[in-house]
Amino acid sequence: MSSQIAIQKVSQPKPKPNQAELGFGHFFTDHMFIMDYTAGQGWHDPRIVPYGPIEVEPSVMVFHYGQATFEGLKAYNTVDGRILLFRPYANAERLNVSNERLCIPPIDPNFTVEAIKSLVEFEKNWIPAGEGNSLYIRPFVIATDPYLGVKPADTYKFFIVLSPVGAYYPEGINPVKIYVESNYVRAVKGGLGFTKTAGNYAASLKAQEEAKEKGFTQVLWLDGIEKKYIEEVGTMNVFFKIDGEVVTPSLEGSILAGITRDSTIKLLKSWNVPVNERRISIEELYVAHDQGKLEEAFGTGTAAVISPIGELNYNGRTISINGGKTGDLSSKIYHTITGIQNGSVADTFNWTVEVK
Amino acid sequence: MSSQIAIQKVSQPKPKPNQAELGFGHFFTDHMFIMDYTAGQGWHDPRIVPYGPIEVEPSVMVFHYGQATFEGLKAYNTVDGRILLFRPYANAERLNVSNERLCIPPIDPNFTVEAIKSLVEFEKNWIPAGEGNSLYIRPFVIATDPYLGVKPADTYKFFIVLSPVGAYYPEGINPVKIYVESNYVRAVKGGLGFTKTAGNYAASLKAQEEAKEKGFTQVLWLDGIEKKYIEEVGTMNVFFKIDGEVVTPSLEGSILAGITRDSTIKLLKSWNVPVNERRISIEELYVAHDQGKLEEAFGTGTAAVISPIGELNYNGRTISINGGKTGDLSSKIYHTITGIQNGSVADTFNWTVEVK
Repeated sequence: MSSQIAIQKVSQPKPKPNQAELGFGHFFTDHMFIMDYTAGQGWHDPRIVPYGPIEVEPSVMVFHYGQATFEGLKAYNTVDGRILLFRPYANAERLNVSNERLCIPPIDPNFTVEAIKSLVEFEKNWIPAGEGNSLYIRPFVIATDPYLGVKPADTYKFFIVLSPVGAYYPEGINPVKIYVESNYVRAVKGGLGFTKTAGNYAASLKAQEEAKEKGFTQVLWLDGIEKKYIEEVGTMNVFFKIDGEVVTPSLEGSILAGITRDSTIKLLKSWNVPVNERRISIEELYVAHDQGKLEEAFGTGTAAVISPIGELNYNGRTISINGGKTGDLSSKIYHTITGIQNGSVADTFNWTVEVK
Repeated sequence: MSSQIAIQKVSQPKPKPNQAELGFGHFFTDHMFIMDYTAGQGWHDPRIVPYGPIEVEPSVMVFHYGQATFEGLKAYNTVDGRILLFRPYANAERLNVSNERLCIPPIDPNFTVEAIKSLVEFEKNWIPAGEGNSLYIRPFVIATDPYLGVKPADTYKFFIVLSPVGAYYPEGINPVKIYVESNYVRAVKGGLGFTKTAGNYAASLKAQEEAKEKGFTQVLWLDGIEKKYIEEVGTMNVFFKIDGEVVTPSLEGSILAGITRDSTIKLLKSWNVPVNERRISIEELYVAHDQGKLEEAFGTGTAAVISPIGELNYNGRTISINGGKTGDLSSKIYHTITGIQNGSVADTFNWTVEVK
């Protein structure tokens, strides 16, 4: 693979969206990164080109058999005028974990980070100003053979696209109401649950829609085998503070190894807060609540960083957590990680990578 | 939805492939069917247009979140010069079962069949001559919003593409060697296993590749909960003849309700062969073999119709079924269904639909 990234500039840059209308994932920058894979040749022709529609055959394998992986991370403008990425090597390595499971050829993680840095540097004027705003980075791989046989493809495209996004909490971090899902299943050990692949998200849509109709923001997923153990919340990992100890579901093949999850665990350990990765049942959680020991609950993910859970509903029984307010520990984790990301908190873990 | 299908003809038809090089899913006809969905407007603008590349945004939702469904059926030239479809209404109805689970708006099944018939009639010269050759029909739906939020899309495209395909068994129906998979899981109840959606096929690739490396044609999937009950074989439903009775896994949410499966059950009943839809464990199958009662095993699907299983390998123990030869009942089902499809056997079930 050549690390020479060819560059083709747009003739006319697009107008940038207003900060107020950013939202998430609606706008894309002027350029994108593309690299091709051909069996026998490997990954080749890395290039930065104008962002815009691509041509694919209707028979392109990704439409039919879903051989597709992706990542998500952000670039931040710091308070002192630098541009930071948060743990991009972890994303690049996880992309290969997904690729391996989906029979997609691996991509050198160092090159993935180099490509991200090159594209972000090239598009740095697109990183939106304003507290909490950032440039969302979406690397993704799709199978491109024009062929209807069910087999791993011989050709792929690796893209990186950039989207300026607004603050997740424009009015401050805010707890949500969660429906505990006991009908639909997200994933099971032996399947794709630990990967970031398109099909996992398709599988989640119906539960999410039904929960919204019932007045909840998202679902809490239970394991697909016993419908007993807690897995994830929406598209986030989940943590509970019970009687002073923080508990999060252990990685057993059906849940994503979140980078914000890992960062949260490392932060808690550095603060000497007991943290335990293990199986935790929904019944255990409700018992802890009844004993007054369920102190906080929150999701972790790239988009929200920390999403406090104010209320859970399981089999018709609703419990309120921390009086429906954001807990002190949730808040501390949120402000520490977002502070490291925007340069206002010292990066003692060397998590950030500067784009120069 | 308008049933007026607009037609745009190619200026220059493509040369047709040689029969010998057909294979499966490599070639596509001159035209395809497209229809658009827009929230608030419904399905609109059905049209037959030249087959060729389409333009999509790199942010198109199907690339990222896999909201995609499909079907597969065939058009056959009969011995007396007619063109037949096999149970197309069953495909059109199953497409909506998949759509419902994937949060994709339904498509009037009668219109789907009308669109299939119109396109096949338009492309009838592409139905290849030669015994066992046919025109494979692939209806599919993809989410087309250029948006990275995880939610059901507001826009979709419904395509029908046609591919002339060769006989599945150019040298006669032939039993295959199957590896019983006890590591990877295809699907679990509560997930997407009963739908034809892209992600199910992505999930199957790695097991399939590893089985091939071990010298097997495909895998036999076990249930994801106990790794005990038989589900499917490769991308087919599976049947076993045990002590005179035919047994096939019951539809409990994790396996596809195959149309060839249903046709096989109906044929067996019409022949007064006992047939039982129930859970069947891999251990039971091996015990039946040891007692000399496992008489036949075969997969059912649109591509092969019937695929006899000559050998199974489970946890290192190999068993041979019917001496590795195609069983009489497997052969009779195969010849009856393919005979109904090519018009040489009376269609007493009214399964075929003529394209005029």
